[in-house]
Amino acid sequence: MVVSRKVNEDLQKERDRCTFNVKELTHFLDGGEKITKYRKELENRVLNVKGLRDEVPEEYLSHKERYENAVRKAVIMHQALGNLDENNLNEQEKARLGLRTTISSAIFKDNSPLMLHYSMFTNVITGQADDEQLKYWLPKIRNMKVIGTYAQTELGHGTFIRGLETTAEYDPKTEEFVLNSPKLTAYKWWPGGLAHTANHCVVMAHTYSRGKSCGIQPFIVQIRDLDTHMPMKGVKLGEIGAKLGFNTVNNGFLGFENHRIPRDRMLMKYSQMKKDGTFVSGPSSKLVYGTMVYIRMTILCLMGNCLGKAVTIATRYAAVRRQSQPKPNEPEPQILDYVTQQHKLFVSIATSHAYYMNCYRLWTIYKKVNNELATGNLENLAELHALSCCLKATTTADTSILVERCRTSCGGHGYMLSSNLPQTYANVTAAYTYEGENTVLHLQTARALMKAGTQVASGQTVSPSMAYLADRSKITKWDNSVRGIIKGFEKVAAGRVEACLYSMQRHITDGKSQEDAWNLTSVQLVAASEAHSRVILLSVYKSELEATSFALSGETRTVLYQLLELYAVYWALERLGDLLLYTPITAADVQELQQRYETLLGKIRPNAVGLVDAFDFRDEVLNSALGAYDGRVYERLMEEALRSPLNAEPVNQSFHKYLKPLMQGKLVPHKL
Amino acid sequence: MVVSRKVNEDLQKERDRCTFNVKELTHFLDGGEKITKYRKELENRVLNVKGLRDEVPEEYLSHKERYENAVRKAVIMHQALGNLDENNLNEQEKARLGLRTTISSAIFKDNSPLMLHYSMFTNVITGQADDEQLKYWLPKIRNMKVIGTYAQTELGHGTFIRGLETTAEYDPKTEEFVLNSPKLTAYKWWPGGLAHTANHCVVMAHTYSRGKSCGIQPFIVQIRDLDTHMPMKGVKLGEIGAKLGFNTVNNGFLGFENHRIPRDRMLMKYSQMKKDGTFVSGPSSKLVYGTMVYIRMTILCLMGNCLGKAVTIATRYAAVRRQSQPKPNEPEPQILDYVTQQHKLFVSIATSHAYYMNCYRLWTIYKKVNNELATGNLENLAELHALSCCLKATTTADTSILVERCRTSCGGHGYMLSSNLPQTYANVTAAYTYEGENTVLHLQTARALMKAGTQVASGQTVSPSMAYLADRSKITKWDNSVRGIIKGFEKVAAGRVEACLYSMQRHITDGKSQEDAWNLTSVQLVAASEAHSRVILLSVYKSELEATSFALSGETRTVLYQLLELYAVYWALERLGDLLLYTPITAADVQELQQRYETLLGKIRPNAVGLVDAFDFRDEVLNSALGAYDGRVYERLMEEALRSPLNAEPVNQSFHKYLKPLMQGKLVPHKL
Repeated sequence: MVVSRKVNEDLQKERDRCTFNVKELTHFLDGGEKITKYRKELENRVLNVKGLRDEVPEEYLSHKERYENAVRKAVIMHQALGNLDENNLNEQEKARLGLRTTISSAIFKDNSPLMLHYSMFTNVITGQADDEQLKYWLPKIRNMKVIGTYAQTELGHGTFIRGLETTAEYDPKTEEFVLNSPKLTAYKWWPGGLAHTANHCVVMAHTYSRGKSCGIQPFIVQIRDLDTHMPMKGVKLGEIGAKLGFNTVNNGFLGFENHRIPRDRMLMKYSQMKKDGTFVSGPSSKLVYGTMVYIRMTILCLMGNCLGKAVTIATRYAAVRRQSQPKPNEPEPQILDYVTQQHKLFVSIATSHAYYMNCYRLWTIYKKVNNELATGNLENLAELHALSCCLKATTTADTSILVERCRTSCGGHGYMLSSNLPQTYANVTAAYTYEGENTVLHLQTARALMKAGTQVASGQTVSPSMAYLADRSKITKWDNSVRGIIKGFEKVAAGRVEACLYSMQRHITDGKSQEDAWNLTSVQLVAASEAHSRVILLSVYKSELEATSFALSGETRTVLYQLLELYAVYWALERLGDLLLYTPITAADVQELQQRYETLLGKIRPNAVGLVDAFDFRDEVLNSALGAYDGRVYERLMEEALRSPLNAEPVNQSFHKYLKPLMQGKLVPHKL
Repeated sequence: MVVSRKVNEDLQKERDRCTFNVKELTHFLDGGEKITKYRKELENRVLNVKGLRDEVPEEYLSHKERYENAVRKAVIMHQALGNLDENNLNEQEKARLGLRTTISSAIFKDNSPLMLHYSMFTNVITGQADDEQLKYWLPKIRNMKVIGTYAQTELGHGTFIRGLETTAEYDPKTEEFVLNSPKLTAYKWWPGGLAHTANHCVVMAHTYSRGKSCGIQPFIVQIRDLDTHMPMKGVKLGEIGAKLGFNTVNNGFLGFENHRIPRDRMLMKYSQMKKDGTFVSGPSSKLVYGTMVYIRMTILCLMGNCLGKAVTIATRYAAVRRQSQPKPNEPEPQILDYVTQQHKLFVSIATSHAYYMNCYRLWTIYKKVNNELATGNLENLAELHALSCCLKATTTADTSILVERCRTSCGGHGYMLSSNLPQTYANVTAAYTYEGENTVLHLQTARALMKAGTQVASGQTVSPSMAYLADRSKITKWDNSVRGIIKGFEKVAAGRVEACLYSMQRHITDGKSQEDAWNLTSVQLVAASEAHSRVILLSVYKSELEATSFALSGETRTVLYQLLELYAVYWALERLGDLLLYTPITAADVQELQQRYETLLGKIRPNAVGLVDAFDFRDEVLNSALGAYDGRVYERLMEEALRSPLNAEPVNQSFHKYLKPLMQGKLVPHKL
């Protein structure tokens, strides 16, 4: 069979008729041509390193082999990237580069066993160690003498941190802390790299001195011998087992039995334990919110990147795939020409843009609040926290749904791992429960909304992102523009907040406690927080686009605004019940919205491939037979299939062992 | 550490306070005590067979080892079940037993490589071979001399069967068919067991005689030598590679290069190829709809079973898990007491019931239509087909969402494979694209709806399931009862059908062709079919429950009707936009519905564990550390973790090979 090596004709035609400059859009999404250049250099550098590409795809290896292969690659990658030179970038540019860099996913489909060393472990020590501790630990961490991870979650407790059961009791006689896991549920559970990779670990433990609780404090604990890598005395370590994804991350468990560590292993930037057992409490426990907010902010861009990858794969496939024959005597259409397919895909392109815009705005607010914190001003921290909670919850939930929609839009082929869509989903849906469970996060934002709702009722001013709650005016006539839809969503969120206040009041009047009334209202509270996040996502998308796109060419701005409008109209139609309840939108308006939605799909259609090309994900990052730049979909599906080790032999040994005796009516043994 | 072996206290308390007889409900769901008894005997029989339980969970094996282990178990299971005796059951009871039997999922987490031999291969030959062919093939199939599969889908074509590219050209000189795969996209792709297991295969191929097309016909083709198992000459076979699930099913590809088979290998019950090349066409191509309808019907119960498993796991876990501390000085509540958790879980219990009821009703209609078909009466086939299309699409889509909701309701622990929730999702979401892609199926039902919509407009009668479209009366006052909600959904579906007719007309008036108008309306057409399926699911659930539950005790009927009401109110709130557009429901009605929903959650709460116990899934079927009957959640999570082969050694070899050199600043080699 002659196999073509050139770009698929249909895909080439799509590119030829694209109306805007794809590179211009890439630079815009990256935050400038300079950042694009750095990003591409980084990608080239990593992909030129020998030994980082798998000969046998990792899905064919055993669990153990996968881990060993991942350690090998992590170490090679560390050596290759040792001294990254980003000197010409300022702080914002560095942040942007980090947010749009996806190259490690080209190496680790299921993430690196060192990922927590570089992220949480290093961040927490940098943020919570005192100067002396920093001086001691940072060089060891940087030159990989110390390989670490971060252990907070336990078998029995996750998002509810106060419930952690690991204990650290201070013994002034020896000036040591004694660490214990008093119950099975106290075992640390989940930290990446904890099982067999790390030799140190930041441990969050309930701390006691002189029989009194000193709250939850962070400790740096050596868990393995640096020479033999054997677990230290009183330290129980192991792997938590296979998961939906992250299988090369080496997630582990950790238990302590009277494990003693020196006093100076408590990270003492904020709180301190004196030699005699005097505990000095830090200024505010809210200061740790900073790190949490930062991570939730990066999740927005992570979702944007993952969704961008998924929709790139699905859109290119839809341009190549031809199916069915609605008109006799005409060729089968590209499935991208079916409006149902456009409906499945285009909103994901827009959503990805919405997340980038929101993440960049959040970064600006984060920097501002962080600078204020340094001067002891905690005024705007609560708002930032409330924002980051609902946005993390809504974007991870939406992305989970949209990535699956991209996958199923590819039919059965999306079910193949060679499409890389199942693995993308596994990565995305993990964020649904990590870094704060979504329902709990929504309820945190809901608490801020309820407070704001009460404040505006009594004429007080509230934080900027909730200021719209103060506008008690009614919409007199529905306005189908993006601006009008945003206004509508504001009324929905305000209406839902009011409904929650009413429900709380009703239950309290019925004799329920405040806590029970809260619980009984909680389904509506989650909905209120979700409604608030719709206001934020859409209005920030709009205002950030307006603020940053003015210098772009008219053609590019046209498609960017088409996507914005699509996003607005899509969500208006998705939340029609809310709009009908809380705004004067009429059936005729709805019909017009539906028609506008369908018209927008048609307008975006000719640029669909250009729009996903502009995300600029390299083939190695997409890692997909369906989504490669050249569109050789069927050839690549077959090439990937042939890499399965089962295809190395025409006849598998199980034929002789089991099938042949069965065919001959002979009994086969029960054991291999 | 002392590990408890008794049932978790919280779970025991839940069972103690259950208000209804759990066994009574189990018998009801099974279709009678007699069927429950048979089901349990079957389960005991299989689980008593030696060698069917995995010592190392299959997720830790390599892809190749998993397949070999699955063949071993498939053969042992075949021998053990060789002569199943169901003689005391009538046809309906046998069908019910089959629909509620899940035992093979206790053996194969990822399904059996022989599954298509037993199902499609045997069914198609039974249904489409002529008498002589049956006599020749059936004994060989039953005694496993012939191991088969069914090859329809190709790399380039799935649901659109007319597009299949495999050719079978009849050569009258040798009285043979010549099979060819003229292009890469003509390769068969997906059949289970095709890669290395089957030695025969039913192949659907575009058939030609005397240079003329004879349509798509089925052939039975030997693909491997019975003695050596080597692929036959002109037959190319292999595995398609790793997938999201079904990894032990051995899905394969198949290509032909001038492969010759005797004339009598065409299945000739309906169409025939005479020796001289005369092609005699069968009565109606619609007769094959029968098998498709049957399989889609079984999918409803498959979804009911999978969702029942998922919600059993999540509900038991929610009864055991305690988290957070809303009230100071009180213990952490069971998370099942959080209303948000009830909101996530209880609708899945109701949905599972709804699917069983709908499947049982569909079975009755299927039997009736099938009997009619035997007499040449095709009158009701179209309606049955339209019903099965939208129900398959809606139930697989809903179940995908609900199983994931069950999974994420378990927080991070639901992400562990030891919860068995990710694998349940992989199984369920496969049905989203197999046996007809969901969007295509909705559009088939939409076609029937549009026809019915036109017919009722001109006063003609339409099929029973669409008869409600003829009721043009307006609802004058909203009625919040289940009956009223069904009425409301009927108006929604009718309104959506009307909106589609309007949209079609608008586009045709604009000068569009019929086909283009259809495409431009297709987003709304899918919504119309979905709205129709809401009417069916809810009204059949209600009427089937009313028809079959009258003999149950009052306590059991009470909870069954609570679930029905929950299902109705849940969907009314989910589809509020539609109801507000097409019915006179008011804001006050909505508020009342919301309150009723919350009240229903509270009523179901005390029976939640009893309700999932009543599904009666054995621990081996649930296969879940979170969902076992004894509720030893944390102990089992740890026990399962310790089965990971990575935990067999305290130090993995990768430390010495890679990590230690890294720590010492030495370069490590690039290759293992």
